[in-house]
Amino acid sequence: MPSTNLPRLTQAQAPLTHEVVVVNEFGEATPISIPAERALTVYVDKRELVTLMTLGAHPELLVLGFLRNQRLVASVQDIESITVDWDVGAAAVKTREGIDDIEKRTAKRVVTTGCGQGSVFGDLMEEVDSLVLPPATLTQSQLYGIVNAIRLKESTYKSAGSVHGCALFKGEELLIFVEDVGRHNAIDTIAGWMWMNEGMTGADKAFYTTGRLTSEMVIKSAQMGVPIVVSRSGITQMGHELAQRIGLCTIGRATNKHFLCYSGQDRLVLQPELAGSKLRS
Amino acid sequence: MPSTNLPRLTQAQAPLTHEVVVVNEFGEATPISIPAERALTVYVDKRELVTLMTLGAHPELLVLGFLRNQRLVASVQDIESITVDWDVGAAAVKTREGIDDIEKRTAKRVVTTGCGQGSVFGDLMEEVDSLVLPPATLTQSQLYGIVNAIRLKESTYKSAGSVHGCALFKGEELLIFVEDVGRHNAIDTIAGWMWMNEGMTGADKAFYTTGRLTSEMVIKSAQMGVPIVVSRSGITQMGHELAQRIGLCTIGRATNKHFLCYSGQDRLVLQPELAGSKLRS
Repeated sequence: MPSTNLPRLTQAQAPLTHEVVVVNEFGEATPISIPAERALTVYVDKRELVTLMTLGAHPELLVLGFLRNQRLVASVQDIESITVDWDVGAAAVKTREGIDDIEKRTAKRVVTTGCGQGSVFGDLMEEVDSLVLPPATLTQSQLYGIVNAIRLKESTYKSAGSVHGCALFKGEELLIFVEDVGRHNAIDTIAGWMWMNEGMTGADKAFYTTGRLTSEMVIKSAQMGVPIVVSRSGITQMGHELAQRIGLCTIGRATNKHFLCYSGQDRLVLQPELAGSKLRS
Repeated sequence: MPSTNLPRLTQAQAPLTHEVVVVNEFGEATPISIPAERALTVYVDKRELVTLMTLGAHPELLVLGFLRNQRLVASVQDIESITVDWDVGAAAVKTREGIDDIEKRTAKRVVTTGCGQGSVFGDLMEEVDSLVLPPATLTQSQLYGIVNAIRLKESTYKSAGSVHGCALFKGEELLIFVEDVGRHNAIDTIAGWMWMNEGMTGADKAFYTTGRLTSEMVIKSAQMGVPIVVSRSGITQMGHELAQRIGLCTIGRATNKHFLCYSGQDRLVLQPELAGSKLRS
């Protein structure tokens, strides 16, 4: 498919942090940075679909990935353009041929967890069993490379806190790193980015997220065909059950040399000799 | 209003943690506890409304608070009963006289942040300006009491991690503490609990949340009439702007003796002499 068929995207810019004056425990007024959070209302062919609250770093890719992960659009070629205008907080999506049944397909709501009440439209859970993940492995050495690469990133987090980070790796090579006030936004943005890079599959990739591995994160990873997910945080029961069912490798509590592999252990090539002394704290 | 008008609630029970075997960095298989996460589909007068993903500690109060915070029900007396059956993952809500316009009122979606893409139906943002918060203050000493009380709680978090905690305080007195895989679930559960305690207002209360102070958390607190919110985490720009607009006191980064007051500083009675030495780390 020639790249001229990729959607045209604006590159809307907005500040990612905002300075406010706070009072600390000594009664001192101090300026600090906090992350931006702005409303982006998505219109598909002039019809209002949803309002996303986002940091605002990559709004066009976020919208594209949202449409992808909500299964509202089957192919990136179905989208002609995405135009974001921060002055009005709007993303105008133009499709080539409309979206069939958009009313029906957005009618059923699953308000999921994550940290909040996330939102997956439609019957994603029912699709899970049809997902087949490609064979792929990650070595313990590559896992340590991923954790270290993340440690060196996290720009908004370092300056303002209160954002989640999400990244896509090929082995230990960092392909893209995204921060957002919502961790689902971060993963959706990566899904949008993958679509804009023609021919990119998830088969040889690993996801990293600072957030917990809930059912929704597991489903989103699997939908994008990424068989390995790494998190600094833990996992929930449904995330664990789904991951086991589809053979997704989930690795959590990944900091420094420590980690726990919750599922899909066959995809992780252990190298315990790299873990250092067991006397670590 | 006599208490016989309060809804009848079941007391559905389900395990809050689940044991799984994981592999650590030394290649050792170890059993650990992870938090439960289960789907609860809410039916209002036999009509499917939404599916919530929850830890499952207080499903009836969660559903009641969800209906309250989504502004789908104006008064607790409008609900006749909430019956939760974990075998089928369903909560059956029976109203006394139905909910007017339920189709219309749940049609507009705002997929917000939190950590995920939360979901606030309707036009909550438009209601913000009509909110008037009662006068109330919190002393620095009481704030330290709140932080300490939380430190002693967090049962599921301590045993399994990956849950958010939320609590309601009167001064430094802990009234209720709720954990859930979703932080919005935790605050909704508290909203449900407040409704079940007749005559309870938010005016002399303070909320505590382990999660970030996003726009949605600020709105929910304000809706419940609670003028002070304390968090271990930070704040986002929209959370900050809304809090300033409505005069909500937001306090974040609250650990040990440290905190930052982001907005509504007039509600916080500073006692810097309690903060200890400035040479702390």
